[in-house]
Amino acid sequence: MAGRETSLALLRVLRGETLERPPIWFMRQAGRYLPEYRELRSRTKNFLEFCYSPAVATEAVMQPLRRFPLDAAILFSDILVVPDALGRKVWFVEGEGPRLEPLVAETGWRFDDPEKAIQRLSPVYETVDRIRGALPEGVALIGFAGGPWTVATYMLQGRGGDKDEARCAVYERPDEVDALLSVLVEATARHLAAQVKAGADCLQIFESWAEGLPPAVFDRVITQPTKRLVSRLRALGVTAPVIGFPRGAGANIEAFVRETGVDALGVDTQTPAAHARAITPKAMALQGNLDPQTLVVGGPALERETRTVLDAFKGGPHIFNLGHGITPQATPENVARMVAIVKGQA
Amino acid sequence: MAGRETSLALLRVLRGETLERPPIWFMRQAGRYLPEYRELRSRTKNFLEFCYSPAVATEAVMQPLRRFPLDAAILFSDILVVPDALGRKVWFVEGEGPRLEPLVAETGWRFDDPEKAIQRLSPVYETVDRIRGALPEGVALIGFAGGPWTVATYMLQGRGGDKDEARCAVYERPDEVDALLSVLVEATARHLAAQVKAGADCLQIFESWAEGLPPAVFDRVITQPTKRLVSRLRALGVTAPVIGFPRGAGANIEAFVRETGVDALGVDTQTPAAHARAITPKAMALQGNLDPQTLVVGGPALERETRTVLDAFKGGPHIFNLGHGITPQATPENVARMVAIVKGQA
Repeated sequence: MAGRETSLALLRVLRGETLERPPIWFMRQAGRYLPEYRELRSRTKNFLEFCYSPAVATEAVMQPLRRFPLDAAILFSDILVVPDALGRKVWFVEGEGPRLEPLVAETGWRFDDPEKAIQRLSPVYETVDRIRGALPEGVALIGFAGGPWTVATYMLQGRGGDKDEARCAVYERPDEVDALLSVLVEATARHLAAQVKAGADCLQIFESWAEGLPPAVFDRVITQPTKRLVSRLRALGVTAPVIGFPRGAGANIEAFVRETGVDALGVDTQTPAAHARAITPKAMALQGNLDPQTLVVGGPALERETRTVLDAFKGGPHIFNLGHGITPQATPENVARMVAIVKGQA
Repeated sequence: MAGRETSLALLRVLRGETLERPPIWFMRQAGRYLPEYRELRSRTKNFLEFCYSPAVATEAVMQPLRRFPLDAAILFSDILVVPDALGRKVWFVEGEGPRLEPLVAETGWRFDDPEKAIQRLSPVYETVDRIRGALPEGVALIGFAGGPWTVATYMLQGRGGDKDEARCAVYERPDEVDALLSVLVEATARHLAAQVKAGADCLQIFESWAEGLPPAVFDRVITQPTKRLVSRLRALGVTAPVIGFPRGAGANIEAFVRETGVDALGVDTQTPAAHARAITPKAMALQGNLDPQTLVVGGPALERETRTVLDAFKGGPHIFNLGHGITPQATPENVARMVAIVKGQA
């Protein structure tokens, strides 16, 4: 394990090392901007079925690695496998996104036992195992889950969009929302621990909907549950580093970093690197934060913005990434250009 | 003028005074949560026509003042009257929002001369004049406009939603976007100056879409244009205080406050009061920031959150407001309760 750790640039940075060139991976690197992904995806009608097919999910993970010299792969899955495992029906509407039966319309919320529920996700862990077997040398494997609040918002509202209903639920039924978050903390901890057991080198918690919350609500639904999640992970014996990504959290990032116990911070597009550095311990790895739209545009803007991000995070442990997931409109050529610049080959 | 200033709590706070109880108004206080507004609105099919009818717009402004002892009225208008005046077709799709012909699809952008264009908005200034004549004693009148970037995003994309296309335009056609922002700065300065001339006591710039921008882009499309807008206003002889509201700007708020020259800061829902206070001069008024969803929920949550906001901003110049506009699902009863708590009558 120690040998593997020292051979992986990503893990070295996550442990606090500053490398001359940052390792690079990017959010949704296995995604619709790749024609081979679209082809693969078109063969399976149901998106969750795609996520639960180890061979297909592993192939999706390997696709970007064949094109680009990336330093990490990330499990192909979805943050909504956790509510799915907990017995909530999840489906995907083409071109619109995920749907669930919204909890807000129901009384007496009931969920399956988190420990047992997570056993249903064994195909995901089989995928992790397969990816580990297929990974090129020097490439780390990232496991992931949605943050408790982000997953809860989907469960509460039944869909994405604004989070008004989820916030109303926090005000109207605070104890029930706390109970829901506790179930998610336990299920997510077990889900992440199982990924590490199957071969994930480190973990990322996507708290994609961290914006727009009053500070006290942020503390209640994001900071405290994430803190409990990280400490539950440690109690389960997981020592793999954890990257927290509270997207859109603004000034609440500071409390998030101070209290949750995450090892590294995913920095969103709008947060200045200098600010992120100022509010984090010196040895904490920062990950980010190129605007994904530069990969749609390409040309001199892509070149300039990529170098701006490299310069801004220089002098401390940095993992190059986007500030948000890549979009389907990005081109593989632009991605290749970005990677070459980060690798010092352009 | 000096006499009026000292009799208006809002202006005293904007000039740096800390009052025992903050003055209160709230964003979209003349809006769909009021049955009398819905009735008034239903009589005019076209929303811009509604904005351009001084009698009707004045009536909309007066409605919340009849119900609640508010300290300010705000002009009833729309941020898109500026592009409308500049010769861009604007229309509203019921239940969806505004539409324009998107600039991104066009080449050779052309706009009418800002000074002449703004003369088309004379019905708006007539509305300001009428409101001033109808206002109860002690109630200040706020004029407003959209921030240059927020208005530009609508013009670039033709609609709201995510701002990906507008950001792409910044990367792909930076000089043209700069030119567009300059036209908007000049038109907006003249539009705001005309509102003050007609009787507005102070001004608010709604930069509602300040989120998600890389720091250098934020500087280029928000901080610098707003700085030019404020200095153009001063050059036009406007001394009325200006409230900047860069919603969602996160860590970029600091540069916004430091550089733009705004007199007061509108604080969004997620920004902690203590943080806002720490990054602003001691005498700068802060305005905000109750979560609008508490006015949907009501009950003990509304009471608790209202008092939390009051306490959080205590000890410095504060204007009580929401952190975002009130929603149609809020109830007048809940609003009355919030106002009573702020006024110390509950």
